[in-house]
Amino acid sequence: MKGNPVFGTEKCTQLGILVHDIEKSSKEYAALLGVPVPPVQMTGAYEDAHTQYLGKPTKARCKQAFFYYGDLEVELIEPDQEPSVWRQALEEHGEGMHHVAFHITDMEEKIRLGEEMGMKLLQRGRWNTGHYAYLDATDSLHVIVELLENGQFEI
Amino acid sequence: MKGNPVFGTEKCTQLGILVHDIEKSSKEYAALLGVPVPPVQMTGAYEDAHTQYLGKPTKARCKQAFFYYGDLEVELIEPDQEPSVWRQALEEHGEGMHHVAFHITDMEEKIRLGEEMGMKLLQRGRWNTGHYAYLDATDSLHVIVELLENGQFEI
Repeated sequence: MKGNPVFGTEKCTQLGILVHDIEKSSKEYAALLGVPVPPVQMTGAYEDAHTQYLGKPTKARCKQAFFYYGDLEVELIEPDQEPSVWRQALEEHGEGMHHVAFHITDMEEKIRLGEEMGMKLLQRGRWNTGHYAYLDATDSLHVIVELLENGQFEI
Repeated sequence: MKGNPVFGTEKCTQLGILVHDIEKSSKEYAALLGVPVPPVQMTGAYEDAHTQYLGKPTKARCKQAFFYYGDLEVELIEPDQEPSVWRQALEEHGEGMHHVAFHITDMEEKIRLGEEMGMKLLQRGRWNTGHYAYLDATDSLHVIVELLENGQFEI
């Protein structure tokens, strides 16, 4: 039965996994999936990403590598030492699953609906073709949710 | 590019999430997805499930509830107090993501290939139309992997 999901979609598009050493972990995922080791990417500097963590600007960046479980993206994330949702979770819980992501439209409204469900906005920022928000849903869903919206946005 | 994955598939079919109170968490997932609260199921007793945890028989069972992120199944798991991969993880790490699952064929060979990659067999058992094995891949992939095979099997 197709429902009426809060975020306008029930499709999870990405799993985020925190790692200490992205080169090492990328080799393991490449071996598991039988694919070449992908290039490591880096999220934008503050001037581009405008990253806000717990409501304050942060210079935090992370290294990223992407794999695919079919059409489900697996994002490996190695954060730097600056304050971020990634660094905090890595220090508190170690390596492992960090978030499940949904591609949505109308970010502000979706953040509001998440907050109505008791989720808390942890971090937001931009990449070159979109913007994201991490919502803490650990009390209710026992995961962190990332909302991703493609487009050009001011935040 | 389509690779040659170790488990014969690159498609992740299920996310497993440990919870303390499956009725409460089911209501939250049902609200998120706009679907009715599904019935809580119970895994089989030892006589049917033949559950082996760390190589020894265990009477462990768990309550389960299933949701769907599109074609990705979300399994909520509330374990009982008997020794199991679920109980251990819930006590060590609390509620949250437990495993990613792949539907495979030729279980014994796939377990062997996982072990060749350094994974460790944690638990296995049967349900009424298949069998499963949990492999600890936390050192390499930073997750627990569950292999699921449909069919009737002796273990």
